[in-house]
Amino acid sequence: MDAAAITPTLRWTGDSIEIIDQTRLPAELVLLDVRDVASAVDAIERLAIRGAPALGAFGALALVVGLDEAQPDSLDAARELLERLRHEIGDARPTAVNLRWAVDRTIDAALAAPELFGASTNVDSNSGSAGSVDELRRRLLEEALAIGAEDARACAEIGRLGREVLAEATVIATHCNAGRLATAGIGTALAAFYAKAAAGEPVRVLAAESRPLLQGARLTAWELADAGIDVSVVPDGAMASLIAGGEVDAVIVGADRIAANGDTANKVGTLAHALAAADAGIGFYVAAPTTTIDAAVPSGDGIVIEQRSPDEVHHAGGQRLTPEDAKAVNPAFDVTPARLITAIITDAGVLRPPYGESIAQALAEAEPAGSEAGRC
Amino acid sequence: MDAAAITPTLRWTGDSIEIIDQTRLPAELVLLDVRDVASAVDAIERLAIRGAPALGAFGALALVVGLDEAQPDSLDAARELLERLRHEIGDARPTAVNLRWAVDRTIDAALAAPELFGASTNVDSNSGSAGSVDELRRRLLEEALAIGAEDARACAEIGRLGREVLAEATVIATHCNAGRLATAGIGTALAAFYAKAAAGEPVRVLAAESRPLLQGARLTAWELADAGIDVSVVPDGAMASLIAGGEVDAVIVGADRIAANGDTANKVGTLAHALAAADAGIGFYVAAPTTTIDAAVPSGDGIVIEQRSPDEVHHAGGQRLTPEDAKAVNPAFDVTPARLITAIITDAGVLRPPYGESIAQALAEAEPAGSEAGRC
Repeated sequence: MDAAAITPTLRWTGDSIEIIDQTRLPAELVLLDVRDVASAVDAIERLAIRGAPALGAFGALALVVGLDEAQPDSLDAARELLERLRHEIGDARPTAVNLRWAVDRTIDAALAAPELFGASTNVDSNSGSAGSVDELRRRLLEEALAIGAEDARACAEIGRLGREVLAEATVIATHCNAGRLATAGIGTALAAFYAKAAAGEPVRVLAAESRPLLQGARLTAWELADAGIDVSVVPDGAMASLIAGGEVDAVIVGADRIAANGDTANKVGTLAHALAAADAGIGFYVAAPTTTIDAAVPSGDGIVIEQRSPDEVHHAGGQRLTPEDAKAVNPAFDVTPARLITAIITDAGVLRPPYGESIAQALAEAEPAGSEAGRC
Repeated sequence: MDAAAITPTLRWTGDSIEIIDQTRLPAELVLLDVRDVASAVDAIERLAIRGAPALGAFGALALVVGLDEAQPDSLDAARELLERLRHEIGDARPTAVNLRWAVDRTIDAALAAPELFGASTNVDSNSGSAGSVDELRRRLLEEALAIGAEDARACAEIGRLGREVLAEATVIATHCNAGRLATAGIGTALAAFYAKAAAGEPVRVLAAESRPLLQGARLTAWELADAGIDVSVVPDGAMASLIAGGEVDAVIVGADRIAANGDTANKVGTLAHALAAADAGIGFYVAAPTTTIDAAVPSGDGIVIEQRSPDEVHHAGGQRLTPEDAKAVNPAFDVTPARLITAIITDAGVLRPPYGESIAQALAEAEPAGSEAGRC
């Protein structure tokens, strides 16, 4: 893989955010130059940018864009602006917990700077100056870039460990899109493929198409093919046959949420691959930052599965597939029980069963909690 | 279910074959009146009619249509015509073994009639008459209708037994289309639903959409909804989640080919449902006529899986889903090992493990082999 040739999912240009418009994928690679808040919110709402970590990094940078656009003439005006943007940007996708988290973290870090506002943020309303608005901008940008950099580092570490774990595997299956299009780095599950390719190891990826929204067929296939990695799209229901037939060496997927016992919620369709892998005796791996672990949830039984609109099932490629009087069931996620998971590859190490212990230990060693930036 | 309100997949009108144009489903119910050989071949080639048993019954009736169209003035001319139609109709879909089998059976039965041609078929070329061409037509039609009637009887018996086996089940999952659209009767797997509904028992069907060709979303959803049966389409990858979540009472599917040990080849995607059912401890049933059993194949290892065009995976709803430089894998069938199958429901009874024994016994009791009309 030639890393230099890869178009990043999002990039700070110096005065704007350049993003891949994911609504145009896989048909064409279109870059958007986001330089005002309305465009940023629009990009979030219409899924031009998606994936929880990518949304977090993008939302944080959009605050800087908002400051540049409004050009407040005092720190107080800047603070008022940021409090408005906290909601305008942070709530653009209400279920995207990372977006609001990153926006909050960035604003709070900038506003907490004592040399701008003193030890307390309750400062005299006229204490600001044009110079200190510049300083506020510098701090906002620094924090926003840090969020993206932290995510990128977590992805890189997951990729490094994933490559080690998958050293003997060449044909590897994955589901949905846990890749660079969903993060500010090289992804989580797909990071292992990038790391293998970068090391010159052969890798052939089988991407389950991931109905109904086809993130595997559209996004994973695009980003891997774009990076020169051999990728084949497989109907979700066909993966079990390939696994049973000995055509797959291992399976690796991302995670939406991992319970304290290792039960893992991920895009619907994951469980079927895990069952097939266990039955065939091949490895089934989950790749996710430790921030994806929700220690407050003891097991998968406590994870509520979001039910999405039946319309997503009724349609594909813009066309109605089903009869008008048929119903549809559309759970967004499924839960793979810990007993089917060979290992969980995190930025804090490779966790093995029993997960109750290995997860608790990883969390204890990890940085103080609060970050949810890793949710894919 | 009001059986009278159901439009049959194919029907002999007296001088033509009326079929449902399945290429127009589920958007609209269009009937085709097939009254010449070109239209019959066209209907087969463009999948207006499909499903092995339905193709067999249709191809046999198309011979009568061909005789009526050509109006041969001697038995010899009729025989020449039939030998031409044996290939023209019988080979319209080369992989549809039932089609060629039914055409052969119908022609051979009619030509073997001693009162038409004597004990040998090597008869004097001028022995025919207009009267005996009529007799030949009567025999052709009789055999063709018998093929459809035998299939309908097998379907009805499978439905009766399926209802018994699924007596305690209300929410039942299925895959692909093993229904009336694929047979000359009420189907195989779906026959159980029709029988339950006809008996006034509650039944709710979860139809896996069956990518890439979406026979579940398009055809099973249409035929069950058309019959007033509660049906919901489920993405293939989501079925495991519903099964694991306790939302499914049983799974029933058709079969393409059953090995002597019970290993069952069926539409790709079946295996994943079987693994999920076994893991959750619910019943997984195969419904098929005994003619689907291929005693010459000892186990699933001997079943060659047809690989179909990647284009079917690259597209849905007429639109390209995947990037141009991505590949695709498209196995048409998968093999569910006998150990995952609770019972095989056939027209010769409900077969239970060990299948090596129960299958051998069923075949010994069944009528002499040769018929493959039941392949769905």
